[in-house]
Amino acid sequence: MTTVGILGGGQLARMMALSGAPLGLRFKVMDTAPDACAGQFAPMVVGDYRDEAALAEFAGSVDVATFDFENVPSESAAWLAERIPVFPNPRALGVAQDRLAEKTLFRELGIPVPPFAAVDTREGLDGAVAEVGLPCILKTRRLGYDGKGQFRIRTADDIDAAWAALGPQADSVGLIVEGFVAFQRELSVVAVRGRDGEFRTWPLTENWHVDGVLSASLAPAAVDDVLLATATGHAQALADALDYVGVFALELFCRDGELLANEMAPRVHNSGHWTLEGSETSQFQNHLRAVLGLPLGDTRMVGQACMLNWIGAMPDAATVLAEAGGHWHDYGKSAREGRKVGHATLRAESRAELAHALERVGQGLGREAQVAPVVERLRG
Amino acid sequence: MTTVGILGGGQLARMMALSGAPLGLRFKVMDTAPDACAGQFAPMVVGDYRDEAALAEFAGSVDVATFDFENVPSESAAWLAERIPVFPNPRALGVAQDRLAEKTLFRELGIPVPPFAAVDTREGLDGAVAEVGLPCILKTRRLGYDGKGQFRIRTADDIDAAWAALGPQADSVGLIVEGFVAFQRELSVVAVRGRDGEFRTWPLTENWHVDGVLSASLAPAAVDDVLLATATGHAQALADALDYVGVFALELFCRDGELLANEMAPRVHNSGHWTLEGSETSQFQNHLRAVLGLPLGDTRMVGQACMLNWIGAMPDAATVLAEAGGHWHDYGKSAREGRKVGHATLRAESRAELAHALERVGQGLGREAQVAPVVERLRG
Ligand SMILES: Nc1ncnc2c1ncn2[C@@H]1O[C@H](COP(=O)(O)OP(=O)(O)O)[C@@H](O)[C@H]1O
Ligand SMILES: Nc1ncnc2c1ncn2[C@@H]1O[C@H](COP(=O)(O)OP(=O)(O)O)[C@@H](O)[C@H]1O
Ligand SMILES: [Mg+2]
Ligand SMILES: [Mg+2]
Repeated sequence: MTTVGILGGGQLARMMALSGAPLGLRFKVMDTAPDACAGQFAPMVVGDYRDEAALAEFAGSVDVATFDFENVPSESAAWLAERIPVFPNPRALGVAQDRLAEKTLFRELGIPVPPFAAVDTREGLDGAVAEVGLPCILKTRRLGYDGKGQFRIRTADDIDAAWAALGPQADSVGLIVEGFVAFQRELSVVAVRGRDGEFRTWPLTENWHVDGVLSASLAPAAVDDVLLATATGHAQALADALDYVGVFALELFCRDGELLANEMAPRVHNSGHWTLEGSETSQFQNHLRAVLGLPLGDTRMVGQACMLNWIGAMPDAATVLAEAGGHWHDYGKSAREGRKVGHATLRAESRAELAHALERVGQGLGREAQVAPVVERLRG
Repeated sequence: MTTVGILGGGQLARMMALSGAPLGLRFKVMDTAPDACAGQFAPMVVGDYRDEAALAEFAGSVDVATFDFENVPSESAAWLAERIPVFPNPRALGVAQDRLAEKTLFRELGIPVPPFAAVDTREGLDGAVAEVGLPCILKTRRLGYDGKGQFRIRTADDIDAAWAALGPQADSVGLIVEGFVAFQRELSVVAVRGRDGEFRTWPLTENWHVDGVLSASLAPAAVDDVLLATATGHAQALADALDYVGVFALELFCRDGELLANEMAPRVHNSGHWTLEGSETSQFQNHLRAVLGLPLGDTRMVGQACMLNWIGAMPDAATVLAEAGGHWHDYGKSAREGRKVGHATLRAESRAELAHALERVGQGLGREAQVAPVVERLRG
């Protein structure tokens, strides 16, 4: 009997536990919140990640540990890794936690990135903006997610406001300026690497964000073979360089046929949720297979898939459940503004069928705007 | 927040909980065994189904109740149904619990059955055998499963042994004699009926039993349209007659193109396990959708599927996990002779591909005999 420990008890941990159960695995989830939604299906250790007694209890009850949450303090990950196997390794986690380290590694590996520069002070910000050019974005290096910890600088007049908003965090989490990319499309490579180095990717995914938060994902993304090979190559180079074990996502901007790396997520990723119904093996099960040294599962698609995120509150389920290819995912969370509370995946045999289903769902839920860009892509 | 109560905490309850989680449901499982395998993923009430205090605790913590186990005492089901919604209804459960009531209803509905006769005494057994003819099978009316509680009577010389084996149970569970059917194939209709009477079936499944226990299932079964319509019609007539809500299976013998009903299972069924990966909506999720009055999910197949049962102990997982369409289901049970501890489903785009995968798995696990009849059917 193998027990997998998961640091962080959100929807990613929940879907990992549900997807890992058929492998005969048991789970133990550690989270600071006693009502973390993974706790509805797996026993929990409630505690702060820096609390050594709680960490020790967690370590003592699991055979291997992994993450639902990438911002577990690196010291906690390192402490655990001295006692039990931890995948991905703490170094990979550390790199992915820091936008500066991450982009520096991308560049070293020959993966194109937007211009970027570190910022420590108010004067440093002026210099960084001059270096990367306008427009640009000031971001926190660490702890940002869902577009939080970002400030757009359109003209030099915005610099003061940007510093006022994020400057106070310069010492605690660090800051970085990145050139703004006027992309036509956002893509992600969801990939898995096994303990033995075996590497697989799911079909490339196209993503749409609203206010910095993922709104919809479509797979497979319609791209040519060269672009696909380039994106896959970047992901593999990254995984090999980090000796990465498990699932990760590499987010890419596509501008005029060129790919620029935005960031990597060292865990199962929202843009891979469609794999639950849309591919032979889900990202959740393959992450566990990788972490446990089991054979990786096939990542081929089964039809066409589109995922729609539910933010803040769950819509009424009936419209999606009434669709032949409609699949519902309620994370069992209470409603709260900006919170990811669930998603739906629509699966179809053809792109035309998928577009029709999306239109019906958009209309039925009064969410025409959410489905519109995906429908346009499917018809375009 | 809706909590679904499940009476019985075996693998069916476990897979129901795992499949119902995405609907935002919570679960409470009642079982006599504290280590029932569903308890790994759902909170439990441990107690006897006749223990009113335990039943009251269960009833008080759930919004609706259903079954993983069809032999819950009918008084317990009725007691619950007076307090909370229970699906399927206790009458349907009662009929399916008793082979005599079940076959009598089949006959009333015009569903052909093998000849059968009730048996109460040793003399009654002689009369019943004379009535149905030889060869025949003496079975307990109630509480039989996986071929248990059955004795084959090939010639009149076997009658004494049959009575010695099962006669002592004549008063407690009742006995029935059924004509032995020299079938060419065993088929099952796995069907779901909603609260509003909507009725759907998954593609027909062909099943192979070894020692009375399901060994392999193949879907879709290769049958002509007339046979398919007849089988589906029988299942619908039965569901309507019982005002059945939820998933059930109707087991059929096919002899010389004629269908004879064997029994019905008033719950999700082992011959429907392949629906987890092989169809758009699994039997487990559709059972919950039906019970909760939600729209029923599409039952179309996604490719071709074969399920192999693991009895007694789990084989090594690697061979199946290495298959592109290989899916593993370990129920988290300890090994025990004759116990259903898990299953695997192989999914493929074509029958030829599925046959190849089955051969590789049969060879890799030294289970050539288990896969042979399925491969033969796929190639035949
Ligand atoms: N340099 C950039 N140029 C253009 N858009 C950007 C840039 N950086 C971020 N964005 C937009 O904001 C979204 C969220 O930013 P990201 O850096 O991925 O942070 P998070 O960690 O919150 O996902 C991106 O998916 C993209 O839509
Ligand atoms: N009347 C019969 N004729 C031929 N085979 C039978 C008959 N009854 C049962 N069997 C065989 O035994 C298996 C198990 O019997 P069944 O009546 O379905 O009981 P259980 O409740 O154990 O499933 C059947 O699937 C079939 O293979
Ligand atoms: Mg991002
Ligand atoms: Mg049977």
